Amino acid sequence: MKSNVLLLGPGPCNPSQKVMESLSEPTLGHMDSEFINLVEETKTNLRSVFRTQNRVTFPISGTGSAGMEFLLVNFIEPGDKIVVAVNGVFGGRVANLAKRMGAEVIEVVQDWGRAMDNEAFIDVIKREEPKITAIVNAETSTGVYQSMEGIGEAVHEVGGLLMIDCVTSLAGMPVEIDRWGVDMAFSGTQKCLSVPPGLSPVTLSERAIEVFKSRKSPVPSFYLDLEQLLMYVDGSGGRSYHHTPPVNMIYGLHASLIEILDEGLEARWQRHATAAAYLIEEMTPFGFTPFVPEAERLNPLTTLSFPEGFKDAEMRQKIRSDHNIEVGAGLGPMAGKIWRIGLMGNNAAPSSVDQLVEALKKTLS
Amino acid sequence: MKSNVLLLGPGPCNPSQKVMESLSEPTLGHMDSEFINLVEETKTNLRSVFRTQNRVTFPISGTGSAGMEFLLVNFIEPGDKIVVAVNGVFGGRVANLAKRMGAEVIEVVQDWGRAMDNEAFIDVIKREEPKITAIVNAETSTGVYQSMEGIGEAVHEVGGLLMIDCVTSLAGMPVEIDRWGVDMAFSGTQKCLSVPPGLSPVTLSERAIEVFKSRKSPVPSFYLDLEQLLMYVDGSGGRSYHHTPPVNMIYGLHASLIEILDEGLEARWQRHATAAAYLIEEMTPFGFTPFVPEAERLNPLTTLSFPEGFKDAEMRQKIRSDHNIEVGAGLGPMAGKIWRIGLMGNNAAPSSVDQLVEALKKTLS
Repeated sequence: MKSNVLLLGPGPCNPSQKVMESLSEPTLGHMDSEFINLVEETKTNLRSVFRTQNRVTFPISGTGSAGMEFLLVNFIEPGDKIVVAVNGVFGGRVANLAKRMGAEVIEVVQDWGRAMDNEAFIDVIKREEPKITAIVNAETSTGVYQSMEGIGEAVHEVGGLLMIDCVTSLAGMPVEIDRWGVDMAFSGTQKCLSVPPGLSPVTLSERAIEVFKSRKSPVPSFYLDLEQLLMYVDGSGGRSYHHTPPVNMIYGLHASLIEILDEGLEARWQRHATAAAYLIEEMTPFGFTPFVPEAERLNPLTTLSFPEGFKDAEMRQKIRSDHNIEVGAGLGPMAGKIWRIGLMGNNAAPSSVDQLVEALKKTLS
Repeated sequence: MKSNVLLLGPGPCNPSQKVMESLSEPTLGHMDSEFINLVEETKTNLRSVFRTQNRVTFPISGTGSAGMEFLLVNFIEPGDKIVVAVNGVFGGRVANLAKRMGAEVIEVVQDWGRAMDNEAFIDVIKREEPKITAIVNAETSTGVYQSMEGIGEAVHEVGGLLMIDCVTSLAGMPVEIDRWGVDMAFSGTQKCLSVPPGLSPVTLSERAIEVFKSRKSPVPSFYLDLEQLLMYVDGSGGRSYHHTPPVNMIYGLHASLIEILDEGLEARWQRHATAAAYLIEEMTPFGFTPFVPEAERLNPLTTLSFPEGFKDAEMRQKIRSDHNIEVGAGLGPMAGKIWRIGLMGNNAAPSSVDQLVEALKKTLS
């Protein structure tokens, strides 16, 4: 049996008992109408969580990075121009991947731990008129939540598509696909959606679908080819086999979406905000200080700079081994500088903070 | 609660109770040493099942087709020559994907329902001297098992790499990676490995790794980039985050591999052979005839031509709705012509056949 760890890192978090049990329900065939109905319900509920009417909204059979790749591989053709906001690992990953696919990549950089300046970013969009503009709504490496103000309008003014990474914000902070004018978004199940890792929910606007239809070169992937995927995932033209999706993982997502919509998105966002504020309040006496300015903080994932002389790795290891709590280390250039403390899904609760503080006290004493 | 269906289609099959329960065990963090140890054990046991010493042997975070794509995206550069055996959907898919990646593709076609002629295929390899030769060891669309005799030697004689699809053979019929001289192989968890769909075990020879290292262009994928994946999956240089793997799915694979090795591979192969022979024996009185010549049959997935006037879709639907048994339809050009009956993993047992025959009798009466 595995250890029962309170997961307060950057994801995975601890799903509910009901979600965990759903993973063990009897496997159905991927062409079975009972399973297809479950996929349809999952799509409908994903639309509610993404706040979108987009017909094409479904989970990709891979983790969050597969969702990022799904979007880029279908929408980039060699030579296409993409403007990418880079203020952490995941913006950098979008830029890296776009280059691998032969795009002309314009990186707009910002200090790690800060949101992009919307006005300055919009100026670049207007100047460059890219086919795709990509921005990270929730930067999991730094704990920054990006305001989307004005960006969708600017992108559409120049006839482009807006892509966002909402892996760590979806179902934990406002994500408003339609209101923001987002054309392409990807997320992951192991954060505020509160399911184990394994799926990447994505959504595409009709505008994006039109752009896809005008592609000149074949998509250099079969697994992630939108046209092929729609033959299975979109019932409108009858269904045919494309690949065998992770049936039992979809049970988990299906179960969790019901719980999320039962709670209500606004209530859930508020719960994540309250938990994050309480965490900062409780960690301050130990000498931890928030890495991100208040207005730019990602509630589901709080980043904290260490007190003077703090033994990062040793402390994480002790809290894990002696108290069965995981906290997240810094990633990339932030390694050894910050902790990333996730309060996601059910873990976004004062009791998670209390357990961590108790463990920290005992470990420091 | 989902229906408890006896899955006798082309996969998924019904995993053991223990494997199903393992999916619900507490999620661990992907950087947690307890989980890393479990990944290491999974890799070790996968090597035994693949019959290989290959260091690079691990599950890709996607279903079988993602494994196929992993191999091609890392090893094909534009202009590379690949010889592909095409005698069903999955050989065709390899050819399709290789073209999307800019390869020069030589397709060697064979009638559906027949294995490739090894001598003729070897002649093509010697003439074309391709960088990669791809052949389907277990063609899931037709129920054909491919003899590998002489192929590895020919491929290496011309300095190439041998790639096989063993999605439906691994752990159900002989797969001998090292003895056959296979350099790249991919499988899927939902067939004879007896785990729900969601992972694609792969293995790469040292020869393949050397070829990868000499790549001139960047891999046009980040999710499937071998170099990036090894930073997480291969402990030798320390571990760093690449993506968040499907933790609970890996619990399932880990649990099933232990059961498979406890049974013993030879015993398991024999069990699949016995079950397939019994199936054909029992289905013959109904007028079903084997679609594939005896020497070329894939034991885990038997394909049967219908008796005169048989109502394919109606019968499948009734057997599913009235008896909770799934049988597989024909795929692609075989639709409406054959049934694909999978006896995989725990389902490779006379009792599965007896249940199907009973259901068929009642439905026909």
